[in-house]
Amino acid sequence: MKDKLKVIFLGGIGEIGKNMTALEYGDDILVIDGGLAFPTMDMPGIDLVVPDYTYLKDNKDKIRGFVITHGHEDHIGGLPFILHDVPTMVYATKLTLALIEHKLSEHDIQDVSLIPVQYGDMMKIGCFKVEFIKVNHSITGAVSLAIDTPEGLVFHTGDYKIDFTPIDNVRMDLGQFARVGNKGVLLMLGESTNVEREGYSMSERTVGEALDKIFAQNLTRRIIISTFASNVHRVQQIMDLASKYNRRVALSGRSMENITEMAVKIGELKLPSPLVNIGKIKEIPDERLVIICTGSQGEPMSALTRMANDNSKIKIGENDTIILSASPIPGNEKPVYNVINNLYRKGARVIYHALSEVHVSGHACREELKTMFSLIKPKYFIPVHGEYRHLKQHAELAQSLGMSEANILVPELGDIVEVSKKGLVVRDKAPAGQLLVDGENIGDKTEVTLRDRVHLAEDGLMVVVVNISMDAKELSSEPDLICRGFTLDEGMEEEIKKIIESVMKKVGKQLDEREEIKSAVRKAVKKYVFKIMRRAPLIMPVVIIH
Amino acid sequence: MKDKLKVIFLGGIGEIGKNMTALEYGDDILVIDGGLAFPTMDMPGIDLVVPDYTYLKDNKDKIRGFVITHGHEDHIGGLPFILHDVPTMVYATKLTLALIEHKLSEHDIQDVSLIPVQYGDMMKIGCFKVEFIKVNHSITGAVSLAIDTPEGLVFHTGDYKIDFTPIDNVRMDLGQFARVGNKGVLLMLGESTNVEREGYSMSERTVGEALDKIFAQNLTRRIIISTFASNVHRVQQIMDLASKYNRRVALSGRSMENITEMAVKIGELKLPSPLVNIGKIKEIPDERLVIICTGSQGEPMSALTRMANDNSKIKIGENDTIILSASPIPGNEKPVYNVINNLYRKGARVIYHALSEVHVSGHACREELKTMFSLIKPKYFIPVHGEYRHLKQHAELAQSLGMSEANILVPELGDIVEVSKKGLVVRDKAPAGQLLVDGENIGDKTEVTLRDRVHLAEDGLMVVVVNISMDAKELSSEPDLICRGFTLDEGMEEEIKKIIESVMKKVGKQLDEREEIKSAVRKAVKKYVFKIMRRAPLIMPVVIIH
Repeated sequence: MKDKLKVIFLGGIGEIGKNMTALEYGDDILVIDGGLAFPTMDMPGIDLVVPDYTYLKDNKDKIRGFVITHGHEDHIGGLPFILHDVPTMVYATKLTLALIEHKLSEHDIQDVSLIPVQYGDMMKIGCFKVEFIKVNHSITGAVSLAIDTPEGLVFHTGDYKIDFTPIDNVRMDLGQFARVGNKGVLLMLGESTNVEREGYSMSERTVGEALDKIFAQNLTRRIIISTFASNVHRVQQIMDLASKYNRRVALSGRSMENITEMAVKIGELKLPSPLVNIGKIKEIPDERLVIICTGSQGEPMSALTRMANDNSKIKIGENDTIILSASPIPGNEKPVYNVINNLYRKGARVIYHALSEVHVSGHACREELKTMFSLIKPKYFIPVHGEYRHLKQHAELAQSLGMSEANILVPELGDIVEVSKKGLVVRDKAPAGQLLVDGENIGDKTEVTLRDRVHLAEDGLMVVVVNISMDAKELSSEPDLICRGFTLDEGMEEEIKKIIESVMKKVGKQLDEREEIKSAVRKAVKKYVFKIMRRAPLIMPVVIIH
Repeated sequence: MKDKLKVIFLGGIGEIGKNMTALEYGDDILVIDGGLAFPTMDMPGIDLVVPDYTYLKDNKDKIRGFVITHGHEDHIGGLPFILHDVPTMVYATKLTLALIEHKLSEHDIQDVSLIPVQYGDMMKIGCFKVEFIKVNHSITGAVSLAIDTPEGLVFHTGDYKIDFTPIDNVRMDLGQFARVGNKGVLLMLGESTNVEREGYSMSERTVGEALDKIFAQNLTRRIIISTFASNVHRVQQIMDLASKYNRRVALSGRSMENITEMAVKIGELKLPSPLVNIGKIKEIPDERLVIICTGSQGEPMSALTRMANDNSKIKIGENDTIILSASPIPGNEKPVYNVINNLYRKGARVIYHALSEVHVSGHACREELKTMFSLIKPKYFIPVHGEYRHLKQHAELAQSLGMSEANILVPELGDIVEVSKKGLVVRDKAPAGQLLVDGENIGDKTEVTLRDRVHLAEDGLMVVVVNISMDAKELSSEPDLICRGFTLDEGMEEEIKKIIESVMKKVGKQLDEREEIKSAVRKAVKKYVFKIMRRAPLIMPVVIIH
């Protein structure tokens, strides 16, 4: 029987983040990206979320390599965990690869071969031939992938926007996409992040224009700009403006320092003048200084948050103009606005996305999605990178461009889709979902731990200490109740003690095991508390037998 | 000595929600609004947040009444709690009063006199004379307050927008504001919610136009529209459209049923045709039906959320067009999008704020704020109803209109501001902040409970059971460890047991009290766990002494 081409959706489907998709043909698996997601507010104490990669572990021998579209955390952040169990080759452009290398060395991961590629390179990986085609995005080094498979061409857009006036003047060559499209593309996987937005995304260059105006209006003030460290072109624009306005640049925040150093080293970033050490900024007058820092998302320990909370050597005052050159990622609004409010409280002038065009999105809006689709003109289309509504709307957009509904599939996480000239079929389900990372722990154990935490957070707990004499199987002293995150109403404590006494009288003698006593006590107390308070605290009986 | 006019900021300052401001002169206190805030994600298990009203309790004898600007929860939701301790008179227009009455009866609050007022009424309340002036807002019955005090006129905008084409055709009369302004206003308190938005807010009528188009494009489909029950004009527009398109209306959701009934009874809402009982909608063909329901904020038990989760008698399918006629309130994005995603999954067509103009804000944008300010032309200005950045930007807007910085005060929560013809001075601080409501509990106890919950959620807990013989003051059996929401690394359990043994050997004999033993055990275990794991779970020693 002939082998089949399968696409396995392991992340980034029905969600924003932790992108990972695998292609499988015969004995070869090629994995596209290995991202992470940041924990949401309903995951207290969780550090990171990684896609469930059981399918990759189970098919370890087939894996020929990872190809990475770009260096954002939602595309590379899962790699240290995944590659720890599935060491293989990783192909990416230079900035992406430098970021991955840094990450792997932090996690002390060996046995991985990092293979640099250039725009336009064609790599043979197992039975797949992968071409890396430059796209614009909010990080340099981003690529689309044209993957030649035995079944036909598969095209993955990666994250992209179409920017006709990019900062590095290296344009995204629409002709390359037309060439791929003209060869005949069997299947296109298209990112969907901005499908809700009409029109075109703004060019990165417009941010420079907005910042230029702000520099011109704040000639006598110190300027502090917070942005994503990985947005090398944004950092470049800020540095160029500093040079234009005769200001020196200092960096604050570990990732800003690391990534900038990396980007300079590989030639992606050009320093107009040497950086000022952040410890020496007092020697530079306010009007001659720009500080570029982390913290645009209100991250607790980031440079800008520390400044806002007076927890930094950089003291904020009335002569500071602070620019947040970023939008809050959904879910981060509250910490971001806390930072903005606190900066205002210190008398600073604060400029952010709601007040000025100091940020643009890195993702294609509807007209750009249509342009890409029309260049690639695939036979089949599967929207990726988005919550269900994004995927559905991207599917409808493809239909509006003339594609038949039968040629489009809106996948769910874990779907194994078989692709052939005859069509798309969901053939099977791979294990898929989230692996929670909590300190050194990852996975199942953490899942149970989190369930307990959420329960504890909602309802608190009550420890019930029951002292039993071994012979009589009855209470040797009054039960003890300790509550945390939960308060008993008046009179309930006495009532619960009576309930425990009566449970022990009734069933104590028949119970042979401590676990049985625990369970009987838990059940009775739980029932009573719920009846009175409509609350279900975690009940933890401690049974002491003498 | 002459009495002073004081303004006491008890809520809605440095925050969105739980609005409450008091005016005090001599022996008279007048309170403006008594709102609540909804708990944020960092308040697990909390039901509501009420402003700290200690100042009102402490000055109970001076309180002459509450005047309420409108019936939204952030203006009336705290009343049942506050009026329970401070029973007094409440003045409001009819829908506002009906909503308050319903709320008080639910909480079984007596001893409160509800006094209906009409637009244009002037009420003498203690030494204050309060005029109620109609404004437009996303609920009917909203008013600004012109308050004549012995020191001069104080004007409080309440929440408002300027809508030249309101649904009830009763325009907000700019002439009334000009009349007040021409009398000479000492102090204006101005709401700041939308100060970040340029231009003008859209008229409520534009929502009707957008909905009309959707009705016209969905002639053969069932239409389900979720909106705020209190937005009576929105509901009126939907009912009028239903009538135009020959559809019957059914309501789903308790607050939608209650508030609609109330609004019909007091004449604020006109039913074009009798409502269909929600239990009988199967008798009506899809194309002849509109369901108006709650749940536009993704609230867990609301009508729309239950439909999305297949937990409702109303089954969603491919012939449904579902409109969320609302924007997610900041913080609610995640549950709202979960609902949208799940409705899409059921094959429904979903239309929401990102895709169509199906919602407009009820708050004045910058040009409206300028219009109001220019009509009132106060001597002094204090921005209210907003986070710090909103207040600060509203202050800057007033400066841009020619007001001197010295005549503006950006308050902090709890400020007691003395107002006279000579100026504004923060004279003192009132107790202010949040009272957390958790079931029947309110206040301090809940505050401690919440701190424990957040701690439990972040780090989990470990119960350490220590069995001690009374005579020897040493362990009579091995300590027992029970962890929840937290997992020990390998080998740590043994190590902790050893640590407890050594603590007991070292100090056990000198410790007379169970509490001292507990504290010694807690300290030693905590130190060790933090050293190894950099985590600080709640450590709960249970000491059993025989």
